[in-house]
Amino acid sequence: MPFPQLSACAAAPGVIRLVGHRGARGVLPENTIEGFEFALTSGLKLLELDVTATRDGVVVITHNHRLTRSMVRDATGHWLQGEEPKVSQLTYAELSEFDAGGLDGTTAYGQRFPDQSFMTGVAIPRLTDLLDLLRQREHQDVHLFLEIKSDPDLVQNSTARTALVEAVVAEVRAAHLEPRTILHSFDWTMLEDCQRIAPDMPTSFLTQLPENDDDIGEDSSKAVNPVEGCSAMDLPDRVAAAGGQLWCPYHLDVTEQSLARARELGLTTMVWTVNESDDIQRMITLGVDAICTDYPGRAQRLLLQQGLHWLPEAARSCVTTCA
Amino acid sequence: MPFPQLSACAAAPGVIRLVGHRGARGVLPENTIEGFEFALTSGLKLLELDVTATRDGVVVITHNHRLTRSMVRDATGHWLQGEEPKVSQLTYAELSEFDAGGLDGTTAYGQRFPDQSFMTGVAIPRLTDLLDLLRQREHQDVHLFLEIKSDPDLVQNSTARTALVEAVVAEVRAAHLEPRTILHSFDWTMLEDCQRIAPDMPTSFLTQLPENDDDIGEDSSKAVNPVEGCSAMDLPDRVAAAGGQLWCPYHLDVTEQSLARARELGLTTMVWTVNESDDIQRMITLGVDAICTDYPGRAQRLLLQQGLHWLPEAARSCVTTCA
Repeated sequence: MPFPQLSACAAAPGVIRLVGHRGARGVLPENTIEGFEFALTSGLKLLELDVTATRDGVVVITHNHRLTRSMVRDATGHWLQGEEPKVSQLTYAELSEFDAGGLDGTTAYGQRFPDQSFMTGVAIPRLTDLLDLLRQREHQDVHLFLEIKSDPDLVQNSTARTALVEAVVAEVRAAHLEPRTILHSFDWTMLEDCQRIAPDMPTSFLTQLPENDDDIGEDSSKAVNPVEGCSAMDLPDRVAAAGGQLWCPYHLDVTEQSLARARELGLTTMVWTVNESDDIQRMITLGVDAICTDYPGRAQRLLLQQGLHWLPEAARSCVTTCA
Repeated sequence: MPFPQLSACAAAPGVIRLVGHRGARGVLPENTIEGFEFALTSGLKLLELDVTATRDGVVVITHNHRLTRSMVRDATGHWLQGEEPKVSQLTYAELSEFDAGGLDGTTAYGQRFPDQSFMTGVAIPRLTDLLDLLRQREHQDVHLFLEIKSDPDLVQNSTARTALVEAVVAEVRAAHLEPRTILHSFDWTMLEDCQRIAPDMPTSFLTQLPENDDDIGEDSSKAVNPVEGCSAMDLPDRVAAAGGQLWCPYHLDVTEQSLARARELGLTTMVWTVNESDDIQRMITLGVDAICTDYPGRAQRLLLQQGLHWLPEAARSCVTTCA
């Protein structure tokens, strides 16, 4: 059965899709409603985000399992000191005391995004906050890459894993957004759960080969990603065998051959996180389906320069045809 | 009489103000409501914008006197061809047919802002659209540098000049925003009109010395700026003699001595348009009052790195003190 969600992220003649990574991390703090709104204002129709759950079971939008001192301030406005609290050990009320509206520029992570705006008083949002936004009429053509973060401490705990998937799926269904949601993870066991619990949503398999470095200052996903010993060329077959509809490799891992193999297998290929102009250009030249980026404007402009666009003509909101 | 508007743009211990240039031109198309909203979301409290009037007397927010092919598409989505229409010769209804939501990356102007998002279906806004936004409760602490563009073809036409100032001032008064508005121009004759017509709003004198180049791809303001034969050191005295409260030099024209002289004269100094990190840093080191930039995030981050902020502590919207 073809999934309707896939038509929103597959390439087409003249079209390579753009996905706003955690909103638009190069411009505004990641995984904030402000960042998602910016990506939508910029005309993107695909958003990527990360979710996990608080101790009291609220699904929240945040990447790392612990509140991270490079990007979280306490209620008095000071960067976190001492042990970083684990999101799963805080209630949502406790979590809401923290401010995730800016980066500490003295950290390695902060230095990666020197143009990111610095806001104050921005709580980590709930998944439902974003779903509410996307239910608005003007956003009815927006689709989500909803990444479920797998806690490396609980990777063997199938009860915890299933509970998280069930909570996420329940919220998506309550908002009636399952026709616009793609379930996305580095943890392929979690994606098996997704396929069983939500067979109407496609699964998107993230991969990162061990030889490529992790991004500085972020939780690594390698611990939960079962690609040890694989080569780039093995990955599409592994994803297809696991029942995936999308393959989402780290951009440095993609080759012309592996991309061709993914296409043969009927997989949609979305690459992450592509920020430098040369890297974006390489992905355009390779002809991936979709590019996930922290800099939507930069990627839009590179596409336009080559007569390409991130949306099919009928989906561009102008009177007739757009340049 | 001290103008209350000045306290919002004067430096204070630990504080150098940031002004969003045409919104945030490095990030979103200039002089659009989307760009102004982005600057406000980023926590800026000072916006700079340019106004002129249509044939039917509607005050609109746009920089150049002619719709410019590097940044304006027609109703069919194509970049302008042939003669560029003059804003003052179009009705507002005619002007609204054009799309100012993105830059043509093949032009020199477009290449200056390679990360700017590309939107579709964005009309040139009216001044009242922005004033309506700023009347909202959450924006009640935002102030405007309202630049009135002087048409070089009409520089000798005092009737036209006065009519434009009167129209602008009437709209500001109708929105009750005169306590938050600074009238800003390169045309000092126009600023005389402003002082006469609106003695309750401070006047801000833009300067650009002839030896520094114009910004590529923009209307030059040199034709209307009476600083021929001046040196940097002369400018503050000239502004004070003309009854100005603010001096707004091109950033490359400012020196330590001229800044000290401006301070002696009681002038507030706001520099434009400062985009490169090294240039922003030079302005911070000099200790100007305010920096106008296309990249608010970059400037915020540079200030924070040095323990500075763009707002006094009491104006930062967090529970107690902010980092």
